[in-house]
Amino acid sequence: MKAFEESGSGAAAEPSSVGELATYLGGEVVGDPGRRIDGAASAESAGPSQITFALDQRTLETAAGAGCVVIPPGLQAGAGRTCIRVPQPKLAFVKLLERMWPAVAPEPGIDPQAQVHRSARLGSGVRIEAFAVIEAEAQIGAGSVLGCGAVVGRGNRVGEQCRIYPRVVLYPGVTLQDRVIVHAGVVIGSDGFGYVSDGVQARKFPQLGTVVIESDVEIGANSTIDRGALGETRIGRGTKLDNLVQIGHNVRIGRHCLVAAQTGIGGSAVVGDGVIIAGQVGIADHARIGDGVTLGGKSGVPAGRFLTRGVYWGVPARPLDEVKRQLAALALLAKRRGERGRAAK
Amino acid sequence: MKAFEESGSGAAAEPSSVGELATYLGGEVVGDPGRRIDGAASAESAGPSQITFALDQRTLETAAGAGCVVIPPGLQAGAGRTCIRVPQPKLAFVKLLERMWPAVAPEPGIDPQAQVHRSARLGSGVRIEAFAVIEAEAQIGAGSVLGCGAVVGRGNRVGEQCRIYPRVVLYPGVTLQDRVIVHAGVVIGSDGFGYVSDGVQARKFPQLGTVVIESDVEIGANSTIDRGALGETRIGRGTKLDNLVQIGHNVRIGRHCLVAAQTGIGGSAVVGDGVIIAGQVGIADHARIGDGVTLGGKSGVPAGRFLTRGVYWGVPARPLDEVKRQLAALALLAKRRGERGRAAK
Amino acid sequence: MKAFEESGSGAAAEPSSVGELATYLGGEVVGDPGRRIDGAASAESAGPSQITFALDQRTLETAAGAGCVVIPPGLQAGAGRTCIRVPQPKLAFVKLLERMWPAVAPEPGIDPQAQVHRSARLGSGVRIEAFAVIEAEAQIGAGSVLGCGAVVGRGNRVGEQCRIYPRVVLYPGVTLQDRVIVHAGVVIGSDGFGYVSDGVQARKFPQLGTVVIESDVEIGANSTIDRGALGETRIGRGTKLDNLVQIGHNVRIGRHCLVAAQTGIGGSAVVGDGVIIAGQVGIADHARIGDGVTLGGKSGVPAGRFLTRGVYWGVPARPLDEVKRQLAALALLAKRRGERGRAAK
Repeated sequence: MKAFEESGSGAAAEPSSVGELATYLGGEVVGDPGRRIDGAASAESAGPSQITFALDQRTLETAAGAGCVVIPPGLQAGAGRTCIRVPQPKLAFVKLLERMWPAVAPEPGIDPQAQVHRSARLGSGVRIEAFAVIEAEAQIGAGSVLGCGAVVGRGNRVGEQCRIYPRVVLYPGVTLQDRVIVHAGVVIGSDGFGYVSDGVQARKFPQLGTVVIESDVEIGANSTIDRGALGETRIGRGTKLDNLVQIGHNVRIGRHCLVAAQTGIGGSAVVGDGVIIAGQVGIADHARIGDGVTLGGKSGVPAGRFLTRGVYWGVPARPLDEVKRQLAALALLAKRRGERGRAAK
Repeated sequence: MKAFEESGSGAAAEPSSVGELATYLGGEVVGDPGRRIDGAASAESAGPSQITFALDQRTLETAAGAGCVVIPPGLQAGAGRTCIRVPQPKLAFVKLLERMWPAVAPEPGIDPQAQVHRSARLGSGVRIEAFAVIEAEAQIGAGSVLGCGAVVGRGNRVGEQCRIYPRVVLYPGVTLQDRVIVHAGVVIGSDGFGYVSDGVQARKFPQLGTVVIESDVEIGANSTIDRGALGETRIGRGTKLDNLVQIGHNVRIGRHCLVAAQTGIGGSAVVGDGVIIAGQVGIADHARIGDGVTLGGKSGVPAGRFLTRGVYWGVPARPLDEVKRQLAALALLAKRRGERGRAAK
Repeated sequence: MKAFEESGSGAAAEPSSVGELATYLGGEVVGDPGRRIDGAASAESAGPSQITFALDQRTLETAAGAGCVVIPPGLQAGAGRTCIRVPQPKLAFVKLLERMWPAVAPEPGIDPQAQVHRSARLGSGVRIEAFAVIEAEAQIGAGSVLGCGAVVGRGNRVGEQCRIYPRVVLYPGVTLQDRVIVHAGVVIGSDGFGYVSDGVQARKFPQLGTVVIESDVEIGANSTIDRGALGETRIGRGTKLDNLVQIGHNVRIGRHCLVAAQTGIGGSAVVGDGVIIAGQVGIADHARIGDGVTLGGKSGVPAGRFLTRGVYWGVPARPLDEVKRQLAALALLAKRRGERGRAAK
């Protein structure tokens, strides 16, 4: 759990000239290439030795105090400003941050107060922190980190270079591929919500399946991912889940999706590739979300519904334009009714 | 935290003939009673030695690869298929799963790295895993399991055959009756959200009450249940809560309810028996939900509202038919307005 | 994790007379000042030796069994009742609860099974419970409590008289000022949800910032608060967050706000002072919520929207009166359409 204690917008990085940074980014200097930069910050707070980025004129003005601003081709730097012009300023800025404060690999080692079963297999360079538990026959790949008090269930496989933060719980039957990041408090492999009435009460449908988290997935704090009832729950390569997201049993999510906070996806729903889901969206059981769909915040997709590529919003989720027209029509209706009401008095 | 490592849809169970399974279920064989079955799987993935179930013709066709399908009376098996016909196929399938992969009782014992207060009382056959904490005067009933790092607060009573997964926290003042299942990361007994303005700031209303979880309740991962402010919060027998559910202080939920993921129930709300609440529903403070109510996904019940038996949806929650009529009327209004707009051009 | 084991509405407190309690509160006795009171309870359950409070006639009648009721100036006590009249009955009742069951300071000490780094600095009278972890250079102020299994990251500063419940995780870069209460399972300082497409996949925007929780903040169970990407995430003095609340990176929340359960606030949103946010509200990225705004349950504020003082509801959030008029207009429209439909048959 080493981290950013020496970074942050206030901390100093190794100084470079604007010219050196422009060369590193393959960008063009506008203004003074000799200016020294020893840090990065947001547009609002960047000071004379710090760099930031701006995608539009307004943000560039907000960044008036910055020593240098990374800007896109169309933007005018303005008199007396020093800028670096690149095709993708935000991506370039990320590269600068990675250069200024390179991620420090946590020190490997097994804390004497961790509990590792003798049949578990640990790759080289792993770090297992205090009070973590690794159960029988589990495998942890090379370079992975298991935070304080995390639990890796019996027989689980954790790939290489994974980062599992404190207090994560992986029930048995869970596989993480490589470079998976799991934030604190996440639960993976809990029982799905499945019951059958036996006439007297709800009888538990045995939850016997598994979970596979593919490579390069990131899962936000306190999210929950249920195991399959039969078969598996699967999150595709490169998909990112925000905090407090709920994934039901047997859900399949494709590759390179973004799922914002507090969204819930019900049992057996299928989400395609490159889907963008905003916060607090609900997708009910057995719904199918096609490749490239975007769902606006707080949308609700009814059970079994199939959405093809497009932008949707509302409850039930409808094409965004349709929702906007309906909202406008309703506002007009209420306004006219109000006017008639006043006229009648 | 032993579990399903040898189960799952891919694992082999003790083989039986279709005839034996039909006898076990009290069902009728259609096709070949001598066919060997050594596993169960979903309709999509079941293979020639596996059994599945189908409630309708389409699922039966999906299950074309299955060795045997459990079907209801009205469904035609089709030429060459082997089926078992029973009145309730899903319930029968659950019984088969329980027979094929019987739940293994976790091995009893107290991990030497658990911390059990000397005044705590443990029943026979309990299992206390590593880094769990049992505080003074708490009681754990016979056969119950306390997972890694779980905390049972001072004076709490946990009944018999309870299953408390890793990292659960029970504040003091919490009672679990028998056969309660609490998934990883759940918090029970935290302070309710109660404040009184003293003119300068919000002053905490002391949260002095308790929580009672009745028998056969199951609580999903990372859910939170607040203690009563005064008096108790109570979840009735046989009720099931999904993941990330929030239950406020002094809420009373009746028996045999189902509450899906990310639903929140506000302080002092009362929910009757046999209520079904879909995902992401919000029930505000002091609302009363009558016996047998069904609330559709993302519904919102305003504070103090009283709903009698029926099906409700929307924000605010209204009878389902009414909501559907309103959605249809709005769609028509917007469409006509659009047509008039185009006609005027 | 000591707590209320000797309190609760059923437990007896030191007895006092109604007259003594009225003097303590600066209130006026109606009825019998000599009546003995040894406890407090809700209006529904208070018995003849217990006190409760009522703000209206109906609650006063509900409290018929109570030995004494704290009431406001306008309310008539009724024949044979004993009451104490004060300007603010609920606040007075809180003062009585604090007097009857004063908060017991947890016993200080460091559990031998906690892991405290030798470079950490602990103030006087701190309590560190079993399996808690304090990393290098962290500071814990005087009188603070760190519950079982909680993690305080490298270099963090926790102020005085803070109460951190079990299983809380503070990533590095987090500051808690004084008297902060953090309930079980909360995660503070996790990475914000920030990615940039590099043309092939989502590349992580480094999350290098910090979190500051000002004094007298309370954070409900299993809530999550992300660190700033650059710069900080900040929760202002006296603000209270309920359970399962999500706060994105670089959010700033003002002073003395109340944020109910399952609400989510997106990245870089700004919330003013004295804002009241009901349950399951969503505030999207970069929205600005002015001082004194009230947001009704399940409201949704779109990205970048600015709301000034007022009461709002709905998705998108609109002035409450406007939403009510629109709901009424829609109900009328659907009703008339239904009547025309029936008339046409």
